[in-house]
Amino acid sequence: MMAGAAGLSLGARHLAHAAGYGGDLTDVRAAIDRNQPQAVKRLQDWIGLASNAAEGRNIQEGAQYMSELLWSAGFQSVRVVQTDGSPGVFATMDNGSARTVGMYFMYDVKQFDPSEWSAPPLEGRIVDRPGLGKVMIGRGAVNQKGPQASFLAALHALRDAGRKPPVNIVLIAEGEEEIASPHFPQIVRRPDVLAALERCKEVWMPTAAQSATGDVTIELGAKGLIELEMTCSDKAWGRGAANDIHSSYKAMLDSPVWRLIKALNTLVSEDGNDPAIDGWFEHVQPLTARQKEIIADQAAHTPEAVLKHEMGVQRWVRDLPYREALERLASQPTVNIEGMYAGYTGPGGKTLLPSKAVAKLDLRLVPDQTATDAAAKLKAHLARRGFGDINVNVTGGYNPTQTDERSSLIRACVDVYRTAGLDPNLSPRAAGSWPGYIFTDPPVALPAGHFGFGHGAGAHAPNEYYVIDSTVPMLRGMAGATQGYVAFLYALERG
Amino acid sequence: MMAGAAGLSLGARHLAHAAGYGGDLTDVRAAIDRNQPQAVKRLQDWIGLASNAAEGRNIQEGAQYMSELLWSAGFQSVRVVQTDGSPGVFATMDNGSARTVGMYFMYDVKQFDPSEWSAPPLEGRIVDRPGLGKVMIGRGAVNQKGPQASFLAALHALRDAGRKPPVNIVLIAEGEEEIASPHFPQIVRRPDVLAALERCKEVWMPTAAQSATGDVTIELGAKGLIELEMTCSDKAWGRGAANDIHSSYKAMLDSPVWRLIKALNTLVSEDGNDPAIDGWFEHVQPLTARQKEIIADQAAHTPEAVLKHEMGVQRWVRDLPYREALERLASQPTVNIEGMYAGYTGPGGKTLLPSKAVAKLDLRLVPDQTATDAAAKLKAHLARRGFGDINVNVTGGYNPTQTDERSSLIRACVDVYRTAGLDPNLSPRAAGSWPGYIFTDPPVALPAGHFGFGHGAGAHAPNEYYVIDSTVPMLRGMAGATQGYVAFLYALERG
Repeated sequence: MMAGAAGLSLGARHLAHAAGYGGDLTDVRAAIDRNQPQAVKRLQDWIGLASNAAEGRNIQEGAQYMSELLWSAGFQSVRVVQTDGSPGVFATMDNGSARTVGMYFMYDVKQFDPSEWSAPPLEGRIVDRPGLGKVMIGRGAVNQKGPQASFLAALHALRDAGRKPPVNIVLIAEGEEEIASPHFPQIVRRPDVLAALERCKEVWMPTAAQSATGDVTIELGAKGLIELEMTCSDKAWGRGAANDIHSSYKAMLDSPVWRLIKALNTLVSEDGNDPAIDGWFEHVQPLTARQKEIIADQAAHTPEAVLKHEMGVQRWVRDLPYREALERLASQPTVNIEGMYAGYTGPGGKTLLPSKAVAKLDLRLVPDQTATDAAAKLKAHLARRGFGDINVNVTGGYNPTQTDERSSLIRACVDVYRTAGLDPNLSPRAAGSWPGYIFTDPPVALPAGHFGFGHGAGAHAPNEYYVIDSTVPMLRGMAGATQGYVAFLYALERG
Repeated sequence: MMAGAAGLSLGARHLAHAAGYGGDLTDVRAAIDRNQPQAVKRLQDWIGLASNAAEGRNIQEGAQYMSELLWSAGFQSVRVVQTDGSPGVFATMDNGSARTVGMYFMYDVKQFDPSEWSAPPLEGRIVDRPGLGKVMIGRGAVNQKGPQASFLAALHALRDAGRKPPVNIVLIAEGEEEIASPHFPQIVRRPDVLAALERCKEVWMPTAAQSATGDVTIELGAKGLIELEMTCSDKAWGRGAANDIHSSYKAMLDSPVWRLIKALNTLVSEDGNDPAIDGWFEHVQPLTARQKEIIADQAAHTPEAVLKHEMGVQRWVRDLPYREALERLASQPTVNIEGMYAGYTGPGGKTLLPSKAVAKLDLRLVPDQTATDAAAKLKAHLARRGFGDINVNVTGGYNPTQTDERSSLIRACVDVYRTAGLDPNLSPRAAGSWPGYIFTDPPVALPAGHFGFGHGAGAHAPNEYYVIDSTVPMLRGMAGATQGYVAFLYALERG
């Protein structure tokens, strides 16, 4: 769910240092190259099994497949963990190290419509992308199977080179990330999982952090999120008609569609850009001086025109200057309508008065908002205006998450990128969301973040891809990303 | 398009008189009974060919089928007339009478979703409906193929009885009634059609005017209508993103969904029940004393509880008393959202910021509003509020229509119903719409209305039906309706 909101570049303040982690890794690199065909095939096969909680697609199968991937990568204990929703996977690998590292995986992917794709979304077809190299097209290619498969390839390569990974690993995977992880707390807060996480100093997730030009960004946090459906129905309201009825009756009957519009209208400012829900900003923290400094660096290092072109955008909200737009991206809570429907939506018209109207919303949260408080505030806001009968079904939520840039996790990220000659950029907070709060909030309370070389795009969109072989000088393909994960494990060992 | 909004009953002021029109019709009645199996089969076959302009379904086929039905019923001249949209049919039957009668048919039907039906919508299955009799279920059964097929059966029976119809007939059929007849003026205003209509004293359409208990209602007019789509797209707006984009960007990008909601919000009062479009009531005429009198009769003769039960309704707008609700139904212009969609509408959520949002509206008009002026006022209202980039695509429109209760057409209706022992109710204006204005407005300027015994329901909805054999004492089935059309032609001859 993070993808699509990263990729803003920031100039570094430090020089890369020359020494690599793990000493001479020639043997591991050779193993990575040798295993590359199998690694690519492994990713393609995984893409072939799309799991999706929203549609109830391949849920048990996806968890089973995830555990087989972990077994085969050398985890000694792998357990499918049931929840009230989709199961997760809890796996551990004891390598006799003094250092234990926590990891977070997701095995689910976003829904897709094959008719919108240039290649079948579950085939994992490799195509030439001029100016980029060979990319694999597929649902989940970058979000998140590609980076995760590259990490698994690192474990295979270490074993193939006759090495043990330098750290012990505690890995927790879920299958509901794309519906905002409603049951993930049930997994993380199991006594056995909590006990395992107590041995860790951080939790991280493999990602493809490089932009198409090779720049890399480290996110120091992420916005929170609640996703919900608002349904206005005549049935709950006690007005209008029990079923869709001929539209001529509008003259004497109320309309749930107008009612939903009137209710939605109260949720945002006149231009639709600021939340207007009662008390919404009560716990919202302004950006710190340091966060503003980081954003100013972002603005200075990623040309506005480039970003606008990539996004297909002409103007920011309120025609804001670039830096202010970026500050909003990091700091502003949002109320977005991701989908909406009522009545007849086919070709032409159909003169009916609908008996139901639905809006799907996602609301991004910033520190110190919480998902629970946000949902309660929305419901209270509606009830106060007489819209208490409008059903608000919260399908998932994350708190915001924040990790200190001085933590050993972020220092390891920075060091490994620098060692590779990259100048890592910082972002104070991703505008996208991930369930990092489950690790950064009590009872776990650990730094949490993402690491990984490589690039992809199109998360949640058609033609999602992950770069397999890069023709861009500083941009790593899959094998390079795999090398990066090996180096990262050695860096964490020392951190 | 009328169906679904009629059926309010009104006590009669006059006694039925005993004499029938056309003298002894025993021979015709026998022919009707003899031909009944073929008449039912003819209706089933017609239902089997669903024409629908909104979906571009069976347009030419529907016009062709319509003309074959007219040929076989004895029309001497039948021509398919092309337009810029769906073709119509122009047919004449010269019976050597001094009196020529204009008729209006529609061969199109509303869209349908077979999964919502208890019988296949194109089968015309006949089923027992306890308390009603045998009904035929099918799309178009009552709106308008059933009544029209019953009228054609009257022509077949007259011929079979060795008679000529007592009047000459000019018949105009269209295939776009359900999309608000955008090209019907092109048919009616052809010189040959206008010349034929000059010989007529009225234009009428066969209908099933009886309620389930047998009461019959005569509509003295109908509201007008414009149907349109409002589309707010980032492309036209020059804001937001060119395509759907990850919803996290809402913090820095405008949303066309919020913009559409803000624009829609200005179109109606806070409770969604009154149009709030600038100048909307400029030409709206209040009900006359006579119209209010008619409505008071309606309220007195159709129990409120019965109507509410039939409609599946608990409350009228603003908890109005019954009579005031009925006055609104006849007199108030409406702004209704018949459909709406944006972004992701499947199961669960999908965190995207849509690049487009669409609302489908139907706006009912009353005298002296016109469709052209209404569309212009809506566009001006939006432009004045800065929403000029929101595309307003008017797909069809009718002016309101009104016919004098003292016209020979209405007097013939009243007389034939009374002769059958029914106490015809009046309605000042149907809340539903039909293109009667094309006949009542210049250059044709004739009385126009509906006539017909029989009953059906579910126009525009699943399980639409038409009564074939009635078990309700005063309610006529198909053969009885056919007899009624024979009597009506004789009544028109004398009027």
